[in-house]
Amino acid sequence: MSEKIYKIVNARLLLNHEIVENEYLWFQHGKIIHPQNLFFDAHRDADEIIDAKGLIVAPGFIDTQINGGYGIDFADNEGSVEKIQQDINTVAKGLLQYGCTAFCPTVVSSAPAVYSKVLPLLNQRKGSVQGGAEILGAHIEGPFISVEKKGAHDQTVFRNAKNGISDFDDAYGPELKKGSKAISIMTVAPEIDGVADCIPDLVKRGITVAMGHTACRIAQAEEAVKQGATSITHLFNAMQAFHHRDPGLVGVLGAADLPIPSSQIGHPASSLTSPSRNKPDPRPFYGIICDGVHVHPNSVRIAYYSHPNGAVLVTDALSAMGLPKGTYTLGGREVEVDESGACYVKGTSTLAGCTVTIDDCVRNFQRFTNCSQVEAIEAATLHPARLLGIEDRKGTLNVNADADFVFLDDSTGELRVKRVFVAGEEIALVNGLV
Amino acid sequence: MSEKIYKIVNARLLLNHEIVENEYLWFQHGKIIHPQNLFFDAHRDADEIIDAKGLIVAPGFIDTQINGGYGIDFADNEGSVEKIQQDINTVAKGLLQYGCTAFCPTVVSSAPAVYSKVLPLLNQRKGSVQGGAEILGAHIEGPFISVEKKGAHDQTVFRNAKNGISDFDDAYGPELKKGSKAISIMTVAPEIDGVADCIPDLVKRGITVAMGHTACRIAQAEEAVKQGATSITHLFNAMQAFHHRDPGLVGVLGAADLPIPSSQIGHPASSLTSPSRNKPDPRPFYGIICDGVHVHPNSVRIAYYSHPNGAVLVTDALSAMGLPKGTYTLGGREVEVDESGACYVKGTSTLAGCTVTIDDCVRNFQRFTNCSQVEAIEAATLHPARLLGIEDRKGTLNVNADADFVFLDDSTGELRVKRVFVAGEEIALVNGLV
Ligand SMILES: [Zn+2]
Ligand SMILES: [Zn+2]
Repeated sequence: MSEKIYKIVNARLLLNHEIVENEYLWFQHGKIIHPQNLFFDAHRDADEIIDAKGLIVAPGFIDTQINGGYGIDFADNEGSVEKIQQDINTVAKGLLQYGCTAFCPTVVSSAPAVYSKVLPLLNQRKGSVQGGAEILGAHIEGPFISVEKKGAHDQTVFRNAKNGISDFDDAYGPELKKGSKAISIMTVAPEIDGVADCIPDLVKRGITVAMGHTACRIAQAEEAVKQGATSITHLFNAMQAFHHRDPGLVGVLGAADLPIPSSQIGHPASSLTSPSRNKPDPRPFYGIICDGVHVHPNSVRIAYYSHPNGAVLVTDALSAMGLPKGTYTLGGREVEVDESGACYVKGTSTLAGCTVTIDDCVRNFQRFTNCSQVEAIEAATLHPARLLGIEDRKGTLNVNADADFVFLDDSTGELRVKRVFVAGEEIALVNGLV
Repeated sequence: MSEKIYKIVNARLLLNHEIVENEYLWFQHGKIIHPQNLFFDAHRDADEIIDAKGLIVAPGFIDTQINGGYGIDFADNEGSVEKIQQDINTVAKGLLQYGCTAFCPTVVSSAPAVYSKVLPLLNQRKGSVQGGAEILGAHIEGPFISVEKKGAHDQTVFRNAKNGISDFDDAYGPELKKGSKAISIMTVAPEIDGVADCIPDLVKRGITVAMGHTACRIAQAEEAVKQGATSITHLFNAMQAFHHRDPGLVGVLGAADLPIPSSQIGHPASSLTSPSRNKPDPRPFYGIICDGVHVHPNSVRIAYYSHPNGAVLVTDALSAMGLPKGTYTLGGREVEVDESGACYVKGTSTLAGCTVTIDDCVRNFQRFTNCSQVEAIEAATLHPARLLGIEDRKGTLNVNADADFVFLDDSTGELRVKRVFVAGEEIALVNGLV
């Protein structure tokens, strides 16, 4: 990490929910610093000036749900530890190309042996030009989820928690129990036997509990929130449709009687639709896939209208993400990737999962909702950082935050990634990728 | 209608979306008048002062969907014309007790003979103390609706419109064709053969076209709106659940690309969620049943967040509405009405339709959404008037509007009807009813 002091000039900085001009951004040792400290303490000026040439400078994007990319699946435990480690780095480096500077590698429902092997490799790790985007710990989706809403998960490994938290320890192996930082988010179905009662224990271990792959009713979802669940996994996908008498998990967006959190950490900020203005919003965040396919744009809009500060853009990308046009064998299936990056089961028009990138999600979200640039960016920066309780170091350009930046060109009306920094170092963008 | 000039004092008047004090409301000949005209033209002062004693004075409530009450069903064509006429008056007078001063008697899917007999009797008619609440023309629900979402309708009379508008003329008999004012709202399913193409013709005949009892997909719903549909009938009930890839009719609340109406008449006013600020909202109004049973409160909230100015409170009340505790035979079924007014199929806990009153809906809507008093009242006054294109004479306290008022007591935190005026005359409230 460089000793040098850097100063970004000619930028439009995303600071305190606004895009401001005529301010500078200083960083050193991979962190944003306060220039006053320099002047008073060491009388130093910047060692290097970075000219942003009028681009928007925003925090790097954070993707809290990504299963893999470049032909690699994080739930794949074939091969040596070195091979898996290498694969993780391939994805982590690839993500930087899209402005994604931190992510939660996501593992679908698996057998204990898989978690035991894979989880230690997905432990938290700082970002760097060499290693790629920062790993924020894994997002473990399942296996405490609903057969009825299993999606592409393998139901033979699904479990319940009749014996309480020990069932979780059994399912995930030693990583969970030892309270390492390997698991940051866990997606569970609140209606599975014993799950709701375990939520407080999981939260105590520092895990963000999300509800997903669930057939739960609204009362079960609200109860899970009271127990400490703070997120919804890929809203609208793999959950009950919005039935008139019981809106199910989606209905939590309309919840009014949840207890107000005592702290802002881990909760959405208040908005015009919050049950209590000027207090943290007790409703969960919601991951949402803005690829225009998995969720209808009108549904994205309704979610945004209902709970604007809860939106967390996720790609839910699969191994096909980032692959050039061609035919591949992924997860045992033959798939075709077309020129747009869309991935189909070979010879059919059946989508084989998401291949959207996080910068696409930001553009789509802004276009779908007609929200401001700031709101679109914050849904992929500040909101996921808040969800993970790490907004002191991620998701903002505040002093002491990590020097993860995207330089965004909005001259075409859309936000396009032009330069990317991770931990204070600029990465080389591959031509034509962005 | 009295020659007398009345002046309401000590009122908190609902004027221009605000509750204002220290203003007076003048009326004469059953209409709100401008006092300046009196002073300049005739130098008259009020003949009678009405002291509101600090109550809120608002326009009378309008119910655009009510099937009957007091044991009477508007689709019932048994008996003589005189008997039916009398029955209509019974309901119309009863409605005044709840502050409902105008309504659209609603007729479920019926055979042509029923419409021919009943529709002329449901023609528009001014309100009065003797005759009851004003009839704004009938709301004809079906028979161009979906078997899949038929609810309690008799599917043997369902039809399609393969032959265009002549199928509508055949279905409803001469009333529709002669362009009388007997039909004000028609609920159709946009996916039924030929229906969408007929919408412009129906609109030309002065009919408000609503979408309901439909399994339509979002694209069909948006197409129907482009053709001229301006309302959704009992949102969430009798329509597709909110599926993630296709939100169906509910998804219209998130529509962003509908053509902006050239006039405000018949469309919701713009709100923070309108596709185009400061222009009429192209999204339809939506009737919504706020009894706390037919639609979950969280769903009401999500609808309100998404499209606040589209909300139109409806009771969808059935013949059991207004009946005292007891056992009745209604529509051939034995039902029991309990002390709360809820109506069950005899010996079961199965609800036999809505028995909620419009003032209950206003209170519930305010409680569910935490909206302002003004918003709650406007959802039962201004919004239905706009929906019907009659806001020049209904739904406001503006000059030239009909002198239909409710005096509301909010001292308990809830809006309670204390006095009711229809066409400038006060009605006697039955003790204990409100
Ligand atoms: Zn999933
Ligand atoms: Zn109906």
